[in-house]
Amino acid sequence: MKIDVLTLFPEMFQPVFQTSILKKAAEKEAVQYRVINFRDYSSNKHKTVDDYPYGGGVGMVLKPQPVFDAIEDLTKEETKKPRIILMCPQGETYTQKKAEQFAKEDHLIFICGHYEGYDERIRSHVVTDEISIGDYVLTGGELASMVVIDSVVRLLPGVLGKEASHELDSFSTGLLEHPHYTRPAEYKGYKVPDVLLSGNHEKIEQWRSKESLRRTFERRPDLLDKYELSEQQKIWLKEIENEKN
Amino acid sequence: MKIDVLTLFPEMFQPVFQTSILKKAAEKEAVQYRVINFRDYSSNKHKTVDDYPYGGGVGMVLKPQPVFDAIEDLTKEETKKPRIILMCPQGETYTQKKAEQFAKEDHLIFICGHYEGYDERIRSHVVTDEISIGDYVLTGGELASMVVIDSVVRLLPGVLGKEASHELDSFSTGLLEHPHYTRPAEYKGYKVPDVLLSGNHEKIEQWRSKESLRRTFERRPDLLDKYELSEQQKIWLKEIENEKN
Repeated sequence: MKIDVLTLFPEMFQPVFQTSILKKAAEKEAVQYRVINFRDYSSNKHKTVDDYPYGGGVGMVLKPQPVFDAIEDLTKEETKKPRIILMCPQGETYTQKKAEQFAKEDHLIFICGHYEGYDERIRSHVVTDEISIGDYVLTGGELASMVVIDSVVRLLPGVLGKEASHELDSFSTGLLEHPHYTRPAEYKGYKVPDVLLSGNHEKIEQWRSKESLRRTFERRPDLLDKYELSEQQKIWLKEIENEKN
Repeated sequence: MKIDVLTLFPEMFQPVFQTSILKKAAEKEAVQYRVINFRDYSSNKHKTVDDYPYGGGVGMVLKPQPVFDAIEDLTKEETKKPRIILMCPQGETYTQKKAEQFAKEDHLIFICGHYEGYDERIRSHVVTDEISIGDYVLTGGELASMVVIDSVVRLLPGVLGKEASHELDSFSTGLLEHPHYTRPAEYKGYKVPDVLLSGNHEKIEQWRSKESLRRTFERRPDLLDKYELSEQQKIWLKEIENEKN
Protein backbone atom coordinates (compact mmCIF):
# COMPACT_ATOMS: atom_id res chain seq x y z
CA MET A 1 0.00 0.00 0.00
CA LYS A 2 1.13 3.55 -0.76
CA ILE A 3 0.22 6.22 1.77
CA ASP A 4 0.73 9.90 0.94
CA VAL A 5 0.05 12.74 3.34
CA LEU A 6 -0.42 16.35 2.25
CA THR A 7 0.33 18.64 5.17
CA LEU A 8 1.89 21.96 6.13
CA PHE A 9 3.59 20.24 9.10
CA PRO A 10 5.58 17.32 7.65
CA GLU A 11 7.94 17.24 10.65
CA MET A 12 5.12 15.88 12.82
CA PHE A 13 4.99 12.62 10.87
CA GLN A 14 8.52 11.21 10.85
CA PRO A 15 8.70 10.11 14.51
CA VAL A 16 5.31 8.44 14.19
CA PHE A 17 6.17 6.59 10.99
CA GLN A 18 9.48 5.56 12.56
CA THR A 19 8.00 3.92 15.65
CA SER A 20 6.58 0.52 16.41
CA ILE A 21 4.11 -1.10 14.00
CA LEU A 22 4.14 1.72 11.44
CA LYS A 23 7.91 1.40 11.18
CA LYS A 24 7.82 -2.41 11.01
CA ALA A 25 5.19 -2.28 8.28
CA ALA A 26 7.47 -0.12 6.13
CA GLU A 27 10.45 -2.39 6.82
CA LYS A 28 8.38 -5.37 5.71
CA GLU A 29 7.43 -3.36 2.59
CA ALA A 30 3.75 -3.67 3.38
CA VAL A 31 3.52 0.11 3.11
CA GLN A 32 5.41 3.09 1.67
CA TYR A 33 4.91 6.52 3.23
CA ARG A 34 5.41 9.87 1.55
CA VAL A 35 4.85 13.12 3.43
CA ILE A 36 4.38 16.12 1.14
CA ASN A 37 4.33 19.76 2.13
CA PHE A 38 1.68 21.07 -0.22
CA ARG A 39 3.05 24.57 0.22
CA ASP A 40 5.66 23.41 -2.32
CA TYR A 41 2.87 23.31 -4.90
CA SER A 42 1.72 26.88 -4.38
CA SER A 43 1.91 28.79 -7.66
CA ASN A 44 1.99 32.03 -5.68
CA LYS A 45 5.38 33.70 -5.38
CA HIS A 46 4.96 34.03 -1.60
CA LYS A 47 4.07 30.33 -1.42
CA THR A 48 0.81 31.08 0.36
CA VAL A 49 -1.76 28.30 0.53
CA ASP A 50 -4.64 30.14 2.16
CA ASP A 51 -6.62 33.30 1.62
CA TYR A 52 -9.52 35.24 3.17
CA PRO A 53 -13.00 33.71 2.95
CA TYR A 54 -15.44 35.09 0.42
CA GLY A 55 -18.28 36.73 2.29
CA GLY A 56 -16.05 37.74 5.22
CA GLY A 57 -15.62 36.21 8.66
CA VAL A 58 -12.80 35.04 10.91
CA GLY A 59 -10.36 32.35 9.86
CA MET A 60 -8.57 31.60 6.60
CA VAL A 61 -9.50 29.15 3.85
CA LEU A 62 -7.17 26.73 2.02
CA LYS A 63 -6.99 27.66 -1.67
CA PRO A 64 -7.91 25.05 -4.25
CA GLN A 65 -4.80 25.42 -6.47
CA PRO A 66 -2.02 23.92 -4.30
CA VAL A 67 -4.17 20.92 -3.35
CA PHE A 68 -5.45 20.27 -6.90
CA ASP A 69 -1.92 20.48 -8.28
CA ALA A 70 -0.38 18.28 -5.57
CA ILE A 71 -2.99 15.58 -6.13
CA GLU A 72 -2.55 15.74 -9.88
CA ASP A 73 1.20 15.32 -9.47
CA LEU A 74 0.91 12.43 -7.00
CA THR A 75 -1.54 10.50 -9.15
CA LYS A 76 -0.23 11.22 -12.65
CA GLU A 77 1.14 7.73 -13.18
CA GLU A 78 -1.80 5.87 -11.67
CA THR A 79 -4.38 4.01 -13.68
CA LYS A 80 -6.66 3.35 -10.70
CA LYS A 81 -8.00 6.33 -8.79
CA PRO A 82 -6.72 6.30 -5.20
CA ARG A 83 -8.85 7.09 -2.15
CA ILE A 84 -8.33 10.78 -1.41
CA ILE A 85 -9.26 11.36 2.19
CA LEU A 86 -9.98 14.75 3.71
CA MET A 87 -9.72 14.89 7.49
CA CYS A 88 -12.44 17.22 8.83
CA PRO A 89 -15.05 17.44 11.59
CA GLN A 90 -17.85 17.44 8.98
CA GLY A 91 -16.81 14.04 7.65
CA GLU A 92 -18.21 10.56 8.09
CA THR A 93 -17.46 9.25 11.58
CA TYR A 94 -14.54 6.84 11.35
CA THR A 95 -15.04 3.26 12.55
CA GLN A 96 -13.22 -0.07 12.45
CA LYS A 97 -15.38 -1.05 9.46
CA LYS A 98 -14.00 1.90 7.48
CA ALA A 99 -10.45 0.93 8.54
CA GLU A 100 -11.07 -2.55 7.09
CA GLN A 101 -12.27 -0.98 3.81
CA PHE A 102 -9.27 1.33 3.55
CA ALA A 103 -6.94 -1.60 4.27
CA LYS A 104 -8.04 -3.19 0.97
CA GLU A 105 -6.92 -0.19 -1.13
CA ASP A 106 -3.60 0.20 -2.98
CA HIS A 107 -3.17 3.91 -2.45
CA LEU A 108 -4.47 6.34 0.16
CA ILE A 109 -3.85 10.08 0.05
CA PHE A 110 -4.63 12.15 3.15
CA ILE A 111 -5.25 15.90 3.01
CA CYS A 112 -4.63 17.64 6.33
CA GLY A 113 -5.79 21.20 6.87
CA HIS A 114 -4.67 23.20 9.87
CA TYR A 115 -6.94 25.79 11.56
CA GLU A 116 -8.17 26.89 8.14
CA GLY A 117 -11.30 25.78 6.41
CA TYR A 118 -11.08 24.01 3.06
CA ASP A 119 -12.31 25.71 -0.09
CA GLU A 120 -15.46 23.77 -0.91
CA ARG A 121 -14.16 22.92 -4.41
CA ILE A 122 -11.52 20.70 -2.80
CA ARG A 123 -14.28 18.70 -1.12
CA SER A 124 -16.48 18.55 -4.19
CA HIS A 125 -13.99 17.83 -6.96
CA VAL A 126 -10.88 16.17 -5.53
CA VAL A 127 -11.78 14.25 -2.41
CA THR A 128 -13.33 10.77 -2.36
CA ASP A 129 -13.85 10.48 1.41
CA GLU A 130 -14.36 13.04 4.16
CA ILE A 131 -13.51 11.49 7.49
CA SER A 132 -13.92 12.65 11.09
CA ILE A 133 -12.26 10.58 13.81
CA GLY A 134 -14.79 11.75 16.40
CA ASP A 135 -17.03 14.55 17.67
CA TYR A 136 -14.34 16.90 18.94
CA VAL A 137 -12.29 19.68 17.39
CA LEU A 138 -8.59 19.40 16.63
CA THR A 139 -6.10 22.05 15.54
CA GLY A 140 -5.45 20.24 12.29
CA GLY A 141 -5.89 17.06 10.33
CA GLU A 142 -2.40 15.78 11.13
CA LEU A 143 -3.17 13.83 14.31
CA ALA A 144 -6.43 12.62 12.81
CA SER A 145 -4.67 11.25 9.72
CA MET A 146 -2.07 9.50 11.90
CA VAL A 147 -4.90 7.81 13.78
CA VAL A 148 -6.46 6.57 10.54
CA ILE A 149 -3.10 5.47 9.15
CA ASP A 150 -2.23 3.54 12.31
CA SER A 151 -5.60 1.77 12.37
CA VAL A 152 -5.30 0.81 8.68
CA VAL A 153 -1.64 -0.25 8.53
CA ARG A 154 -1.95 -2.67 11.42
CA LEU A 155 -4.61 -4.53 9.41
CA LEU A 156 -2.38 -5.06 6.37
CA PRO A 157 -1.41 -8.70 5.76
CA GLY A 158 1.76 -9.74 7.59
CA VAL A 159 2.11 -6.57 9.66
CA LEU A 160 0.99 -7.81 13.07
CA GLY A 161 2.65 -10.86 14.51
CA LYS A 162 0.66 -13.45 16.41
CA GLU A 163 1.51 -11.73 19.69
CA ALA A 164 -0.63 -8.77 18.72
CA SER A 165 -3.28 -10.42 16.62
CA HIS A 166 -6.12 -8.07 15.78
CA GLU A 167 -8.82 -10.69 15.66
CA LEU A 168 -9.57 -10.45 19.38
CA ASP A 169 -9.50 -6.66 19.48
CA SER A 170 -12.41 -4.71 20.82
CA PHE A 171 -14.75 -3.77 17.92
CA SER A 172 -13.47 -6.70 15.83
CA THR A 173 -15.48 -9.20 17.87
CA GLY A 174 -18.32 -6.70 18.38
CA LEU A 175 -17.89 -6.73 22.19
CA LEU A 176 -15.47 -4.93 24.47
CA GLU A 177 -12.54 -6.95 25.79
CA HIS A 178 -12.72 -8.76 29.13
CA PRO A 179 -10.42 -7.66 32.01
CA HIS A 180 -6.78 -8.75 31.96
CA TYR A 181 -4.51 -9.58 34.87
CA THR A 182 -0.84 -10.42 35.19
CA ARG A 183 1.53 -11.13 38.08
CA PRO A 184 1.61 -10.62 41.00
CA ALA A 185 -1.55 -12.44 42.11
CA GLU A 186 -1.88 -9.85 44.86
CA TYR A 187 -0.65 -6.27 44.61
CA LYS A 188 -1.24 -3.69 47.37
CA GLY A 189 -3.99 -5.97 48.65
CA TYR A 190 -5.78 -6.11 45.28
CA LYS A 191 -6.24 -9.70 44.12
CA VAL A 192 -6.56 -11.46 40.79
CA PRO A 193 -9.90 -13.34 40.47
CA ASP A 194 -9.51 -16.96 41.64
CA VAL A 195 -10.80 -18.45 38.42
CA LEU A 196 -7.81 -17.11 36.46
CA LEU A 197 -5.44 -18.95 38.81
CA SER A 198 -7.44 -22.20 38.66
CA GLY A 199 -5.85 -23.70 35.56
CA ASN A 200 -9.36 -24.75 34.42
CA HIS A 201 -9.37 -23.51 30.83
CA GLU A 202 -13.05 -24.07 30.23
CA LYS A 203 -14.01 -22.01 33.27
CA ILE A 204 -11.51 -19.32 32.33
CA GLU A 205 -13.01 -19.05 28.86
CA GLN A 206 -16.51 -18.83 30.31
CA TRP A 207 -15.46 -16.14 32.78
CA ARG A 208 -13.82 -14.13 30.02
CA SER A 209 -16.82 -14.39 27.71
CA LYS A 210 -19.19 -13.33 30.46
CA GLU A 211 -16.98 -10.42 31.60
CA SER A 212 -16.63 -9.24 28.01
CA LEU A 213 -20.41 -9.20 27.81
CA ARG A 214 -20.67 -7.45 31.20
CA ARG A 215 -18.22 -4.73 30.21
CA THR A 216 -20.08 -4.10 26.96
CA PHE A 217 -23.44 -4.04 28.78
CA GLU A 218 -22.17 -1.61 31.41
CA ARG A 219 -20.16 0.71 29.18
CA ARG A 220 -21.42 0.48 25.63
CA PRO A 221 -24.90 -1.03 25.56
CA ASP A 222 -25.26 0.49 22.05
CA LEU A 223 -22.84 -2.15 20.74
CA LEU A 224 -25.21 -4.91 21.89
CA ASP A 225 -27.93 -3.57 19.59
CA LYS A 226 -25.87 -4.68 16.58
CA TYR A 227 -24.66 -7.93 18.14
CA GLU A 228 -26.31 -11.33 17.81
CA LEU A 229 -26.26 -13.02 21.22
CA SER A 230 -25.87 -16.80 21.53
CA GLU A 231 -28.26 -18.69 23.83
CA GLN A 232 -25.55 -18.86 26.49
CA GLN A 233 -24.90 -15.13 26.18
CA LYS A 234 -28.62 -14.41 26.62
CA ILE A 235 -28.56 -16.34 29.90
CA TRP A 236 -25.43 -14.51 31.05
CA LEU A 237 -26.91 -11.15 30.15
CA LYS A 238 -29.93 -11.88 32.36
CA GLU A 239 -27.56 -12.85 35.19
CA ILE A 240 -25.56 -9.66 34.67
CA GLU A 241 -28.71 -7.54 34.78
CA ASN A 242 -29.82 -9.28 37.99
CA GLU A 243 -26.37 -8.95 39.57
CA LYS A 244 -26.57 -5.20 38.96
CA ASN A 245 -29.84 -4.80 40.90
CA MET B 1 -2.38 23.31 33.31
CA LYS B 2 0.11 20.50 33.82
CA ILE B 3 -0.04 17.60 31.36
CA ASP B 4 1.94 14.42 32.01
CA VAL B 5 2.10 11.47 29.66
CA LEU B 6 3.18 7.99 30.70
CA THR B 7 4.37 6.08 27.65
CA LEU B 8 6.94 3.58 26.41
CA PHE B 9 7.45 5.73 23.27
CA PRO B 10 8.35 9.23 24.54
CA GLU B 11 10.08 10.13 21.26
CA MET B 12 6.69 10.26 19.51
CA PHE B 13 5.59 13.28 21.53
CA GLN B 14 8.29 15.94 21.14
CA PRO B 15 7.54 16.93 17.50
CA VAL B 16 3.85 17.17 18.32
CA PHE B 17 4.35 19.29 21.43
CA GLN B 18 6.79 21.47 19.47
CA THR B 19 4.39 22.33 16.64
CA SER B 20 1.70 24.92 16.16
CA ILE B 21 -0.85 25.53 18.91
CA LEU B 22 0.58 23.00 21.37
CA LYS B 23 3.93 24.75 21.14
CA LYS B 24 2.43 28.24 21.43
CA ALA B 25 0.42 27.18 24.47
CA ALA B 26 3.63 26.12 26.23
CA GLU B 27 5.39 29.33 25.23
CA LYS B 28 2.50 31.32 26.68
CA GLU B 29 2.81 29.19 29.85
CA ALA B 30 -0.79 28.06 29.54
CA VAL B 31 0.48 24.47 29.76
CA GLN B 32 3.53 22.48 30.86
CA TYR B 33 4.19 19.08 29.28
CA ARG B 34 6.14 16.21 30.80
CA VAL B 35 6.63 12.94 28.93
CA ILE B 36 7.64 10.05 31.18
CA ASN B 37 8.85 6.65 30.10
CA PHE B 38 7.24 4.49 32.75
CA ARG B 39 9.76 1.77 32.04
CA ASP B 40 12.04 3.90 34.24
CA TYR B 41 9.78 3.00 37.18
CA SER B 42 10.02 -0.75 36.71
CA SER B 43 11.36 -2.35 39.88
CA ASN B 44 12.39 -5.38 37.83
CA LYS B 45 16.10 -5.66 37.06
CA HIS B 46 15.33 -6.21 33.35
CA LYS B 47 13.08 -3.12 33.38
CA THR B 48 10.16 -5.10 32.02
CA VAL B 49 6.74 -3.50 32.26
CA ASP B 50 4.59 -6.35 30.99
CA ASP B 51 4.05 -10.02 31.70
CA TYR B 52 1.93 -12.96 30.52
CA PRO B 53 -1.80 -12.87 31.23
CA TYR B 54 -3.17 -15.01 34.04
CA GLY B 55 -5.38 -17.65 32.50
CA GLY B 56 -3.36 -17.80 29.29
CA GLY B 57 -3.99 -16.34 25.86
CA VAL B 58 -2.17 -14.23 23.28
CA GLY B 59 -0.81 -10.78 24.07
CA MET B 60 0.94 -9.32 27.06
CA VAL B 61 -0.46 -7.34 29.99
CA LEU B 62 0.98 -4.17 31.55
CA LYS B 63 1.99 -4.86 35.15
CA PRO B 64 0.51 -2.74 37.90
CA GLN B 65 3.76 -1.83 39.68
CA PRO B 66 5.45 0.56 37.19
CA VAL B 67 2.23 2.49 36.62
CA PHE B 68 1.27 2.68 40.32
CA ASP B 69 4.77 3.88 41.21
CA ALA B 70 4.97 6.43 38.40
CA ILE B 71 1.62 7.94 39.35
CA GLU B 72 2.60 8.06 43.02
CA ASP B 73 5.80 9.86 42.13
CA LEU B 74 4.11 12.37 39.81
CA THR B 75 1.40 13.27 42.30
CA LYS B 76 3.34 13.18 45.58
CA GLU B 77 3.32 16.96 46.02
CA GLU B 78 -0.27 17.51 44.96
CA THR B 79 -3.06 18.31 47.33
CA LYS B 80 -5.80 17.96 44.69
CA LYS B 81 -6.14 14.65 42.90
CA PRO B 82 -5.44 15.06 39.17
CA ARG B 83 -7.49 13.45 36.41
CA ILE B 84 -5.70 10.21 35.51
CA ILE B 85 -6.82 9.24 32.05
CA LEU B 86 -6.37 5.78 30.55
CA MET B 87 -6.56 5.66 26.75
CA CYS B 88 -8.34 2.44 25.74
CA PRO B 89 -11.02 1.16 23.35
CA GLN B 90 -13.23 0.16 26.29
CA GLY B 91 -13.40 3.73 27.57
CA GLU B 92 -16.05 6.40 27.39
CA THR B 93 -16.33 7.81 23.86
CA TYR B 94 -14.56 11.15 23.77
CA THR B 95 -16.53 14.25 22.74
CA GLN B 96 -16.10 18.01 22.70
CA LYS B 97 -18.06 18.17 25.95
CA LYS B 98 -15.42 16.03 27.65
CA ALA B 99 -12.70 18.26 26.16
CA GLU B 100 -14.39 21.26 27.79
CA GLN B 101 -14.46 19.44 31.15
CA PHE B 102 -10.80 18.45 30.96
CA ALA B 103 -9.89 22.04 30.00
CA LYS B 104 -11.05 23.18 33.46
CA GLU B 105 -8.63 20.88 35.33
CA ASP B 106 -5.21 21.84 36.72
CA HIS B 107 -3.46 18.55 36.05
CA LEU B 108 -4.08 15.75 33.56
CA ILE B 109 -2.06 12.53 33.51
CA PHE B 110 -2.39 10.25 30.47
CA ILE B 111 -1.51 6.55 30.59
CA CYS B 112 -0.71 5.08 27.17
CA GLY B 113 -0.48 1.35 26.68
CA HIS B 114 0.91 -0.17 23.53
CA TYR B 115 -0.43 -3.46 22.08
CA GLU B 116 -0.67 -4.85 25.60
CA GLY B 117 -3.73 -4.99 27.78
CA TYR B 118 -3.77 -3.17 31.11
CA ASP B 119 -3.82 -5.12 34.34
CA GLU B 120 -7.33 -4.51 35.64
CA ARG B 121 -6.00 -3.15 38.94
CA ILE B 122 -4.65 -0.12 37.04
CA ARG B 123 -8.17 0.61 35.79
CA SER B 124 -9.83 -0.01 39.15
CA HIS B 125 -7.46 1.69 41.57
CA VAL B 126 -5.43 4.36 39.79
CA VAL B 127 -7.40 5.72 36.87
CA THR B 128 -10.15 8.35 37.11
CA ASP B 129 -11.24 8.31 33.44
CA GLU B 130 -11.09 5.67 30.72
CA ILE B 131 -11.34 7.35 27.33
CA SER B 132 -11.73 6.02 23.80
CA ILE B 133 -11.37 8.51 20.94
CA GLY B 134 -13.56 6.38 18.67
CA ASP B 135 -14.71 2.92 17.63
CA TYR B 136 -11.52 1.74 15.95
CA VAL B 137 -8.39 -0.02 17.15
CA LEU B 138 -5.01 1.68 17.44
CA THR B 139 -1.58 0.20 18.11
CA GLY B 140 -1.25 2.21 21.29
CA GLY B 141 -2.60 5.02 23.39
CA GLU B 142 -0.01 7.53 22.16
CA LEU B 143 -1.86 8.97 19.17
CA ALA B 144 -5.12 8.87 21.11
CA SER B 145 -3.62 10.88 23.98
CA MET B 146 -2.19 13.44 21.52
CA VAL B 147 -5.68 13.87 20.08
CA VAL B 148 -7.15 14.51 23.52
CA ILE B 149 -4.31 16.85 24.50
CA ASP B 150 -4.68 18.87 21.30
CA SER B 151 -8.42 19.23 21.72
CA VAL B 152 -8.04 20.33 25.36
CA VAL B 153 -5.07 22.70 25.06
CA ARG B 154 -6.66 24.76 22.30
CA LEU B 155 -9.55 25.50 24.69
CA LEU B 156 -7.32 26.92 27.44
CA PRO B 157 -7.73 30.67 27.99
CA GLY B 158 -5.47 32.79 25.80
CA VAL B 159 -4.20 29.94 23.63
CA LEU B 160 -6.13 30.58 20.42
CA GLY B 161 -5.98 34.00 18.87
CA LYS B 162 -9.04 35.58 17.34
CA GLU B 163 -8.04 34.24 13.91
CA ALA B 164 -8.74 30.70 15.05
CA SER B 165 -11.50 31.27 17.54
CA HIS B 166 -13.09 28.04 18.68
CA GLU B 167 -16.53 29.44 19.25
CA LEU B 168 -17.62 28.83 15.67
CA ASP B 169 -16.12 25.34 15.45
CA SER B 170 -18.23 22.39 14.45
CA PHE B 171 -19.63 20.72 17.60
CA SER B 172 -19.29 23.96 19.58
CA THR B 173 -22.36 25.44 17.90
CA GLY B 174 -24.04 22.03 17.72
CA LEU B 175 -24.16 22.11 13.89
CA LEU B 176 -21.57 21.32 11.24
CA GLU B 177 -19.85 24.27 9.60
CA HIS B 178 -21.13 25.80 6.37
CA PRO B 179 -19.01 25.58 3.17
CA HIS B 180 -16.07 27.97 2.77
CA TYR B 181 -14.70 29.55 -0.40
CA THR B 182 -11.71 31.71 -1.17
CA ARG B 183 -10.19 33.18 -4.33
CA PRO B 184 -10.33 32.69 -7.26
CA ALA B 185 -14.05 33.12 -7.88
CA GLU B 186 -13.73 30.55 -10.64
CA TYR B 187 -11.21 27.70 -10.65
CA LYS B 188 -11.12 25.05 -13.38
CA GLY B 189 -14.68 26.05 -14.21
CA TYR B 190 -15.93 25.59 -10.63
CA LYS B 191 -17.55 28.77 -9.33
CA VAL B 192 -18.07 30.35 -5.94
CA PRO B 193 -21.80 30.81 -5.12
CA ASP B 194 -22.98 34.27 -6.21
CA VAL B 195 -24.30 35.24 -2.80
CA LEU B 196 -20.79 35.19 -1.30
CA LEU B 197 -19.65 37.74 -3.88
CA SER B 198 -22.71 39.96 -3.38
CA GLY B 199 -21.42 42.05 -0.49
CA ASN B 200 -24.85 41.71 1.14
CA HIS B 201 -23.91 40.64 4.66
CA GLU B 202 -27.40 39.79 5.76
CA LYS B 203 -27.91 37.44 2.81
CA ILE B 204 -24.47 35.93 3.33
CA GLU B 205 -25.28 35.20 6.97
CA GLN B 206 -28.58 33.62 5.99
CA TRP B 207 -26.94 31.47 3.32
CA ARG B 208 -24.30 30.30 5.79
CA SER B 209 -26.83 29.46 8.49
CA LYS B 210 -28.96 27.51 6.06
CA GLU B 211 -26.00 25.64 4.54
CA SER B 212 -24.73 24.79 8.01
CA LEU B 213 -28.14 23.30 8.72
CA ARG B 214 -28.19 21.49 5.35
CA ARG B 215 -24.78 19.95 5.92
CA THR B 216 -25.81 18.75 9.37
CA PHE B 217 -29.09 17.35 8.03
CA GLU B 218 -27.38 15.52 5.16
CA ARG B 219 -24.36 14.21 7.03
CA ARG B 220 -25.11 14.05 10.72
CA PRO B 221 -28.87 14.11 11.32
CA ASP B 222 -28.14 12.63 14.77
CA LEU B 223 -26.74 16.03 15.83
CA LEU B 224 -30.13 17.66 15.11
CA ASP B 225 -31.80 15.42 17.70
CA LYS B 226 -29.91 17.29 20.43
CA TYR B 227 -30.27 20.73 18.84
CA GLU B 228 -33.01 23.26 19.49
CA LEU B 229 -34.06 24.77 16.16
CA SER B 230 -35.19 28.41 15.92
CA GLU B 231 -38.41 29.19 14.01
CA GLN B 232 -36.33 30.32 11.00
CA GLN B 233 -34.29 27.11 11.13
CA LYS B 234 -37.48 25.03 11.17
CA ILE B 235 -38.62 26.75 7.97
CA TRP B 236 -35.21 26.21 6.36
CA LEU B 237 -35.17 22.57 7.37
CA LYS B 238 -38.50 22.05 5.59
CA GLU B 239 -37.09 23.77 2.50
CA ILE B 240 -33.96 21.60 2.65
CA GLU B 241 -36.06 18.44 2.91
CA ASN B 242 -38.15 19.54 -0.06
CA GLU B 243 -35.10 20.48 -2.11
CA LYS B 244 -33.77 16.98 -1.58
CA ASN B 245 -36.86 15.31 -3.09
